[in-house]
Amino acid sequence: MEVLHGVSARAQVAVVSGGIGPTPDDVTRAAMAAFSGSELVEIPGAVENLHVIFGRLGRSISPSNLIQARIPQCARHIPNAGGTAAGFSLEQIGCRFYVLPGVPAEMMQMFRDSVLPELEQLSTCAGMSCDVQVYGLGESVIGELLAEFMGEDKNPEVATQARAGVITVRITAVGEDEDEARRRLAPVQEEVLKRLGPAVFDTQGRSLQAVVAELFLQAGLTLAVAESCTGGEIAARLTDIPGSSGFFIEGGITYSNEAKTRRLGVPEEMIAVHGAVSAEVARAMANGMRKSARVDVALAVTGIAGPGGGTAEKPIGLVYIALADADDTCAEECRFVGNRVKIRSRALKRALNMLRTYLIKRK
Amino acid sequence: MEVLHGVSARAQVAVVSGGIGPTPDDVTRAAMAAFSGSELVEIPGAVENLHVIFGRLGRSISPSNLIQARIPQCARHIPNAGGTAAGFSLEQIGCRFYVLPGVPAEMMQMFRDSVLPELEQLSTCAGMSCDVQVYGLGESVIGELLAEFMGEDKNPEVATQARAGVITVRITAVGEDEDEARRRLAPVQEEVLKRLGPAVFDTQGRSLQAVVAELFLQAGLTLAVAESCTGGEIAARLTDIPGSSGFFIEGGITYSNEAKTRRLGVPEEMIAVHGAVSAEVARAMANGMRKSARVDVALAVTGIAGPGGGTAEKPIGLVYIALADADDTCAEECRFVGNRVKIRSRALKRALNMLRTYLIKRK
Repeated sequence: MEVLHGVSARAQVAVVSGGIGPTPDDVTRAAMAAFSGSELVEIPGAVENLHVIFGRLGRSISPSNLIQARIPQCARHIPNAGGTAAGFSLEQIGCRFYVLPGVPAEMMQMFRDSVLPELEQLSTCAGMSCDVQVYGLGESVIGELLAEFMGEDKNPEVATQARAGVITVRITAVGEDEDEARRRLAPVQEEVLKRLGPAVFDTQGRSLQAVVAELFLQAGLTLAVAESCTGGEIAARLTDIPGSSGFFIEGGITYSNEAKTRRLGVPEEMIAVHGAVSAEVARAMANGMRKSARVDVALAVTGIAGPGGGTAEKPIGLVYIALADADDTCAEECRFVGNRVKIRSRALKRALNMLRTYLIKRK
Repeated sequence: MEVLHGVSARAQVAVVSGGIGPTPDDVTRAAMAAFSGSELVEIPGAVENLHVIFGRLGRSISPSNLIQARIPQCARHIPNAGGTAAGFSLEQIGCRFYVLPGVPAEMMQMFRDSVLPELEQLSTCAGMSCDVQVYGLGESVIGELLAEFMGEDKNPEVATQARAGVITVRITAVGEDEDEARRRLAPVQEEVLKRLGPAVFDTQGRSLQAVVAELFLQAGLTLAVAESCTGGEIAARLTDIPGSSGFFIEGGITYSNEAKTRRLGVPEEMIAVHGAVSAEVARAMANGMRKSARVDVALAVTGIAGPGGGTAEKPIGLVYIALADADDTCAEECRFVGNRVKIRSRALKRALNMLRTYLIKRK
């Protein structure tokens, strides 16, 4: 209560996340009711939402669930299409409180759909930003290429963030209104794109896999993937994309040597001579997958993700990625650093970028 | 300043994270100096740290960087081996403040190395906690089963958190020392485990896939997975686990109907009659995979993850999961709610739990 008073004295808007679940340790609902001096009342729309959700699950609603349909009487209901906890908004001592669930997906959706539009109306200046996503250039190289745009008090401001091999260059411009912010943003964005060249894969918030999926659908080509060390991660990320069945035909996780031979026709002798982690085997996997799945393009990955399996000659982090089409089969040798999770994630990104580069060159 | 006063009135210890970077928008350092009524002074150890870090990067130190080596005169320096911002600790109005950088990796390391040991010493009591991870019971059902242990001011305190189908029940006990805390924790933990029964899959911080991997390795059984709507996610999560090659032989992402027929021997007529999303096809996929991969156990998933592909009869979220061994093949019909990401994630968890349940029963 003291915290709520403190917040309302300092801020015009407060977003409260969490504490509106069905269990007794969820205290936000009652605290907000006490703070606003109003009773909790059941919202028919929220009860209906509970019926829809529990109906689909084939379960009945328990009394503790009904608590989640209650909000302070003076509050406005914020519907939660993704879950059982009703959100709400109320004004108290000059501060507008938005109370949302703690479950990240529910909270984010409700924030985007119900809170953000209201906040935009409240605001007196406008900001525009563009995230330029880059693969294949280091953060320090990007920092040098874009040095003159970076630093304090610039408008637009340019900042970089690195995450699992992808560097995001965020350009943010502020103006009196959206038009002014956009006018400031445009020339800097153009120059950034020019300097970073083909390493830029996106400016619209799409993931690398979404870009690859779009390129495949545009090209009208089909894909199959044979994975060893990435264990299905490449297929999983590509099939995350709605509509991926339009190009993604099949994936094979040929984890054992036997599976590589039986499913993809990789000769046993080749594995014996070169090792399962080799450019030869990667190429044979890609070719075998392309033929047996009858697709235009096949990608194959074989490597050592660790923590076991590394040798002096073939250390942990050594990964081969091969790409085969009807004309050609090429393989890349990669040496990634880090633990198992990091190596697999880096191999995923590199493989996706190989597909992207291939499809762009083919255009 | 108002906030710092408010915090010191309410808390004995406060951890402040962020705002000690090199740019003018980093206000914490100056605010803490003003709050404690002391000047900022340069700490030789922190300057040296800057030289080490910039030396490695081959860059020279700018005046704005030197700001990061300054802390309030009355404060104690908290070294930051991972970055340029010096942390510090000071006491004011009966509250001990720890000021750390906002960069998560730096903050966490400094908290672990410098703050936590002090807090443990400061504390006149000891806390012990246990996270009981549950799959297959809703948060509200768990809340009702454990109602008498929940709510504020209990010792041990029981709280729940839901995430992608997994509910974590955290039991926290406080005592004068570790032994007392442990003695308080034990009976409640035992009772919680008894009430939640086989829905509990872990009390040691392991993921559902890690538990499944351990059970497979203990049982000495091999596994292959055939995935349609989950697109490789099940294989990817199982092969996240180091040592998974000890049981995971192969995965197939038979996304197209043709792949289901060609790779797994699912009869074309069966797909035509029952549809690709049916218990029949799920069973045929599991059986086909078990035989062709020559494994002890095969799991298969087929479903409609959306956003396209749903009908009135077979809505988005309808998923069949089948499990085959040499003796039997069974299939479960699931109806998940939510978007594509959520449906795939729920299907993954359900599939992993089916494997867990199977392996436990077999014991």
